[in-house]
Amino acid sequence: MKLASSPQLLALLPIDRTAGVALHRQIYNGFRRAILGGMLRGGQRVPSTRTLAAELEVSRLPVLTAYEQLLHEGYLTGRVGSGTFVSAVLPDQALRATPLGRPGKVATPKAQPRAKRAPAHDEGGLRPFRVSQPALDQFPRAEWARLVARHARALTPRLMGYGDPAGVEALRAAIAEHVRTARAVRCEADDVIVVSGSQAALRICASVLLTAGDRVALEEPGYPGARSALGTSGAEIVSVVVDDDGIDIEELLGVRPKLRAAYVTPSHQYPLGVSMSATRRIALIQWAQRNGAWLIEDDYDSEYRYVSRPLGALQGMDENGRVVYMGTFSKVLFPALRMGYLVVPPALRKDFIQAREAFDIFSPTLYQLVLADFLRNGYFARHLRRMRTLYIRRRSALLRGLAQHCAEHLEVVNADAGLHVVTQLRRGVNDVTIVKHMAERGLAGTALSECYAERHARSGLLLGFGGSSERVLLHATRTLGSLLDEMDQARSD
Amino acid sequence: MKLASSPQLLALLPIDRTAGVALHRQIYNGFRRAILGGMLRGGQRVPSTRTLAAELEVSRLPVLTAYEQLLHEGYLTGRVGSGTFVSAVLPDQALRATPLGRPGKVATPKAQPRAKRAPAHDEGGLRPFRVSQPALDQFPRAEWARLVARHARALTPRLMGYGDPAGVEALRAAIAEHVRTARAVRCEADDVIVVSGSQAALRICASVLLTAGDRVALEEPGYPGARSALGTSGAEIVSVVVDDDGIDIEELLGVRPKLRAAYVTPSHQYPLGVSMSATRRIALIQWAQRNGAWLIEDDYDSEYRYVSRPLGALQGMDENGRVVYMGTFSKVLFPALRMGYLVVPPALRKDFIQAREAFDIFSPTLYQLVLADFLRNGYFARHLRRMRTLYIRRRSALLRGLAQHCAEHLEVVNADAGLHVVTQLRRGVNDVTIVKHMAERGLAGTALSECYAERHARSGLLLGFGGSSERVLLHATRTLGSLLDEMDQARSD
Repeated sequence: MKLASSPQLLALLPIDRTAGVALHRQIYNGFRRAILGGMLRGGQRVPSTRTLAAELEVSRLPVLTAYEQLLHEGYLTGRVGSGTFVSAVLPDQALRATPLGRPGKVATPKAQPRAKRAPAHDEGGLRPFRVSQPALDQFPRAEWARLVARHARALTPRLMGYGDPAGVEALRAAIAEHVRTARAVRCEADDVIVVSGSQAALRICASVLLTAGDRVALEEPGYPGARSALGTSGAEIVSVVVDDDGIDIEELLGVRPKLRAAYVTPSHQYPLGVSMSATRRIALIQWAQRNGAWLIEDDYDSEYRYVSRPLGALQGMDENGRVVYMGTFSKVLFPALRMGYLVVPPALRKDFIQAREAFDIFSPTLYQLVLADFLRNGYFARHLRRMRTLYIRRRSALLRGLAQHCAEHLEVVNADAGLHVVTQLRRGVNDVTIVKHMAERGLAGTALSECYAERHARSGLLLGFGGSSERVLLHATRTLGSLLDEMDQARSD
Repeated sequence: MKLASSPQLLALLPIDRTAGVALHRQIYNGFRRAILGGMLRGGQRVPSTRTLAAELEVSRLPVLTAYEQLLHEGYLTGRVGSGTFVSAVLPDQALRATPLGRPGKVATPKAQPRAKRAPAHDEGGLRPFRVSQPALDQFPRAEWARLVARHARALTPRLMGYGDPAGVEALRAAIAEHVRTARAVRCEADDVIVVSGSQAALRICASVLLTAGDRVALEEPGYPGARSALGTSGAEIVSVVVDDDGIDIEELLGVRPKLRAAYVTPSHQYPLGVSMSATRRIALIQWAQRNGAWLIEDDYDSEYRYVSRPLGALQGMDENGRVVYMGTFSKVLFPALRMGYLVVPPALRKDFIQAREAFDIFSPTLYQLVLADFLRNGYFARHLRRMRTLYIRRRSALLRGLAQHCAEHLEVVNADAGLHVVTQLRRGVNDVTIVKHMAERGLAGTALSECYAERHARSGLLLGFGGSSERVLLHATRTLGSLLDEMDQARSD
């Protein structure tokens, strides 16, 4: 393996102490650019942190920080201190891929938001297997209530009046900090727009990016809420199939007439759970740039990842301002907060703020202030850490229960990330019917086939594990197992 | 004057003790129906409350309550106990009408929400003359903060999860009670949908009631936020002129091709402040029924009325389910709450709830709970009463100041209701330029001409008085007077 020579590296890492950008970020950016651009190739060894620090004439800390991040995201492999290399294959996801079954059923298109209305008998969405439901029982309610009470007492006429449609400055800054660090999104506070949840974010995207007659690509299977929201502009939806590496880029490239935009969930595809490969990400960005198309990146729950290393956001790879990034606090905090955000390219900022204002003017100020404090004062980071551990346990309980009680009937296809596992049912089994029977036994869950709009649907169940304790999940898998047994029995009778 | 004979009246007042509708409401409804339907004519005397109670075999209290309401709304005249009559002319507004000037200026269409983004230097919109700004300094913040803190402490997983898209049941019930009593809206809790402010309400109306190519009538001059929101559906906007009695019904009736809907502000026309006459209301409802058209009634600030008696809502006169009624808490409580509501006909309820869910799923639960308590526990009624008195004083201060400092330059056209007065400038004076200069001197205010989309615009200023103390308002009129003097001087030089 050839060692990346120092002069070459130094050229790729133009450190500028006057740029106002942290050194570790400059180093990180330089490496990523070099790797994605092919200047550094898979298998190339990179210098030790000590050597690089000396050559760049910086302290070792920023180099260490940058390496950690690059290792974390899969651009480098090895261990800091013992020899570090550019990844031979760019960080694809180590998926437990199963061949795609093609049951004969054709799903009817459904247009319902992911955050589907809870039926009256599942108020709050607390039933086991509810998809996208976080651990509400473990939320630090006391700290939250203290912050709410403090800000409510401190309300002034100014804070009770009309607020900035882009959101409270302190909150925008805190969100920018979070997505920069956790998701490698390139942004400043001024690139962030606070919105009333991800459904609102999608509608605002539709109104800025699409006009009647435009064509927009959606993943198939995909998130039905995106389908309905992006269709409101009068745009035509074009379904592009998803495989184990994310959206099928060859199919996307072949779509005619020209697409105006594509909606993607690269970090954790909804519903299948796959992560888009780095190769595809690069191809997607190049496609957008070439065609003047927009990419809408919905990063709805990528804070939680259990198997493979997380990739940074697509947005962070894009140098051309073609990506609109959206996130939500419904999954990491709680749905009743109704708060999400957009990170938009500078060229679109004005249009987005106008559209956001025309949508619902601005978001309630009190919760924005509370959330800003929650993020800034470390409650949020602490909560995320606690939840990561908790969800590992809940996910394990669900997988254990499924293996024990349901293995004959369904196969786990993906459990890499987020708050649900994806399972596949045997050919010819109708998942919609199963979900109806599950509801009768007090269980939630989503039929995979309902996420298909046009193509032969796979039959499967999306089973959420975020909102229930291990005990409840184990019990629920037993109930599900009995139900599947009975239905199987009824069919063979 | 002929006394309405008892047998006739008894036929018009079919009291049904099993109907589940309060007796006073049945009596009130019967009278109103009879008056609007022409069965009771102007000038007819109605029986004393004692006589009617005896004949209906009910206690006197419900009859008294019904009469009070009918007197309050102008259907009856006279004093309870001394002889009561059907109003000779249905309750038109005693407007201080001024002839409409027709300055030569043609305004360019503007599409900005009424709750226009405050410029950075007017954070919260606290500058004097800001239109639609309530008395935030007088809001019962301590009580509010106590309710917020209490509900924040009481959050449960159920309340943190996904909520009902129609809104929290207790809040819907409290809103229904309020609009029934204060605005004579016919509704139950299940007819109410809680939304994120009136801009959101308009957008949701657009998505349910209008599709691309439909035609919708808007008042001219009118509320620019409605123009932009209702246009999002791809509908074509048709401007119909407003005169001293509200929207010109003759012009509306003559519009071809057929209209799908009309957006109106009958209680307090925005921006001119006129109230739609009862005759026009009836004609409008009949037109909607005949044409299968929808009426969108925006009742944004009719809680405050200073000169004439308030008329009940248009919605309450409609027997055919053609009116969608919308209200907001931004003017009676505070804008940063981001809460409004729709009252929709039963036939549209399902579509509206679906559209509301597809818009932004639901509104933050905490504030819904707080608001429900605020309404139910009498804080709201007390706040409204206090504000009525306060706004009478603030309005007087503004009118006094205008008379003293600005009388040479502008004429007050309407100060009947709401939170702003409408003034008219002399021919040829550019209101947009004045508003710009006002901003330089720390004053807000809205140019009347910017509310015109198509026609010759009147030049005038909308001056809010809700958000500033009497002292500040008096001072602001002096500043405005000097500015107008200087501009006049500059013109004549």
